[in-house]
Amino acid sequence: MDYDLSFGGVIIMLLNSIEWQDNRIRFIDQSLLPERLRFVYCNNINTLWHAIRSLKIRGAPLIGVAVALGYTLAARNSKAKTLKAFKKEMDDISKYLRSVRPTAVNLFWALDRMERTLKEQSCRGHLSVPYNLRTLKGLLLKEALKILKEDRELCKDIGEQGSRLIKNGDVILTHCNAGILATAGYGTALSIFYAAKKQGKSFKVYVDETRPLLQGSRLTMWELQKSGIDATLITDSMAATTIKNKCITKIIVGADRIVRNGDVANKIGTYNLAILARFYKIPFYVAAPSSTIDLKVKSGQGIPIEERPKEELIFIGKRQIAPRDSKAYNPAFDITPAKLITAIITEKGIFSINRFRKVYR
Amino acid sequence: MDYDLSFGGVIIMLLNSIEWQDNRIRFIDQSLLPERLRFVYCNNINTLWHAIRSLKIRGAPLIGVAVALGYTLAARNSKAKTLKAFKKEMDDISKYLRSVRPTAVNLFWALDRMERTLKEQSCRGHLSVPYNLRTLKGLLLKEALKILKEDRELCKDIGEQGSRLIKNGDVILTHCNAGILATAGYGTALSIFYAAKKQGKSFKVYVDETRPLLQGSRLTMWELQKSGIDATLITDSMAATTIKNKCITKIIVGADRIVRNGDVANKIGTYNLAILARFYKIPFYVAAPSSTIDLKVKSGQGIPIEERPKEELIFIGKRQIAPRDSKAYNPAFDITPAKLITAIITEKGIFSINRFRKVYR
Repeated sequence: MDYDLSFGGVIIMLLNSIEWQDNRIRFIDQSLLPERLRFVYCNNINTLWHAIRSLKIRGAPLIGVAVALGYTLAARNSKAKTLKAFKKEMDDISKYLRSVRPTAVNLFWALDRMERTLKEQSCRGHLSVPYNLRTLKGLLLKEALKILKEDRELCKDIGEQGSRLIKNGDVILTHCNAGILATAGYGTALSIFYAAKKQGKSFKVYVDETRPLLQGSRLTMWELQKSGIDATLITDSMAATTIKNKCITKIIVGADRIVRNGDVANKIGTYNLAILARFYKIPFYVAAPSSTIDLKVKSGQGIPIEERPKEELIFIGKRQIAPRDSKAYNPAFDITPAKLITAIITEKGIFSINRFRKVYR
Repeated sequence: MDYDLSFGGVIIMLLNSIEWQDNRIRFIDQSLLPERLRFVYCNNINTLWHAIRSLKIRGAPLIGVAVALGYTLAARNSKAKTLKAFKKEMDDISKYLRSVRPTAVNLFWALDRMERTLKEQSCRGHLSVPYNLRTLKGLLLKEALKILKEDRELCKDIGEQGSRLIKNGDVILTHCNAGILATAGYGTALSIFYAAKKQGKSFKVYVDETRPLLQGSRLTMWELQKSGIDATLITDSMAATTIKNKCITKIIVGADRIVRNGDVANKIGTYNLAILARFYKIPFYVAAPSSTIDLKVKSGQGIPIEERPKEELIFIGKRQIAPRDSKAYNPAFDITPAKLITAIITEKGIFSINRFRKVYR
């Protein structure tokens, strides 16, 4: 399905960036936005893996939902005749899916949950094959759909919680895309804007384009525009000047992993903004569901940071923008130290770093 | 003339980004780099104006040289028969050239100098027309070529002065392009690298791409690579992480205007870097010829900042990267306050802000 967006008419709030439909995963190919809105139907785990690796599916919570559905898809496609063979196959599937991207913890969280379900359900009584393998597959699908539904609800709750911070007249800067397109629901950082708008609050948003993959300009600008939120695009390099000249009152971003001391991994460029916020003494908020919190890791130093191909900096589409043989450094994420973060907003509330550390330890 | 760079073979140090050749201005069309190196021959003031407006010719010192040559070109092309008519025509030419871009002061400085020459020379004795109009035009060309030659020498001197700051093992971050392509000579910030390399010093350079017009990736990476300097490309959003992970020891940038209190206008993104440098307690240097210093303006607030079309943020080449009807804020420059600048490097020496204020007031 391929919608021509130039004719408008898509009601953004009805969009689901991921769905389970007719035993397939339906997702939006986010690499084509804003020029085209294409839904892809996928019944193949390799297609899903490559869609995540190439950022057709992206955003930490959405990746979590996608791999849960992917795990289910692989289970349904399995031709294993015995429970043992099935479990072995699912083990390999899990390893394969875990290899797709290293930083967002929701990926590992969702697969842990699917594996736990498989383990628990297959231990209940004696599973006689093949009938009960079918039951087991049904239970896995149920769990994946539960993860999807929960994510949608969490997004709404994050929005409600965070919207308490939004005042009339606020001018807010956001980075990357932490919206409908990054989750199964209304987003994390952007869900706060949607909730505040619903409450009738009046505020403006500045969106930085988020090089190299332009999630800000391509995705967030598209989402906010379709939702009728007053949004203005800037480049990442304009952040300091915009904070100063446009009187930014707060910065709100999403997260790919939040660790025990409150350090946050998020899209590259987040750390720049946190330092600017400190310089300008404006609050810096991080919004994410609890599934983004990784208590196994003590501090940001323990978060693996994905480095992506240098071609992302040398070409934009087919256009060459640097010498072909340039050396380039291309980390996909950065670590913002907790000391630069005013508060972390989850579905459960707004946590100052001190409170966060007390609650999550 | 159009060189295919994929075959290499251009010796960068022999490149002149601008020349007076056969009564025409020869310049490099910088909008085509790094894919193509094209020399444009221009004998028409309108072509020159549009080349500057569209950043085919850019870089504050180079713009200064270009308009001086443009003024000369217009003088040569003038069909005026009387001194009065000629002066009137040149007045209009000067106004026209002054309208091309508002921020870089070298533009105004160079035209002031050309106008002063015209005024002084035409007052010497009685100019009988047409013979002496030809003499006068010759004197204007001489002055423009002097500006060009001086710029070349100043660049060398800035390089020598600044190279005293470079130590073996330095890892330096630079922004935009303040090199051969931004001047008539070896550049300002990059001239320091060229001088240090000549002195046998070993150091690395990180170059941020400098959105939206990518002067870092397109021009600086190209220049440094051709010059055998160890250069690595990053996006603007990666600056904080690069400073931290790659242990940047100093930041050196150019300038479009330096005012009396030491505030600096330079390519958008400079201010971001100055704040990061302060956060990381690393030195932040600005390199520029004295012609970039504008003592008529007291502080950064008095510098007019060019805002460019929003299309620069919505398209890259023909590729659409944001919704077509996006609002966008696109200032071409920002103001770095003097308090964030460690020192200003000119052809005359290295000036701490305090010393700068004592010398230039």
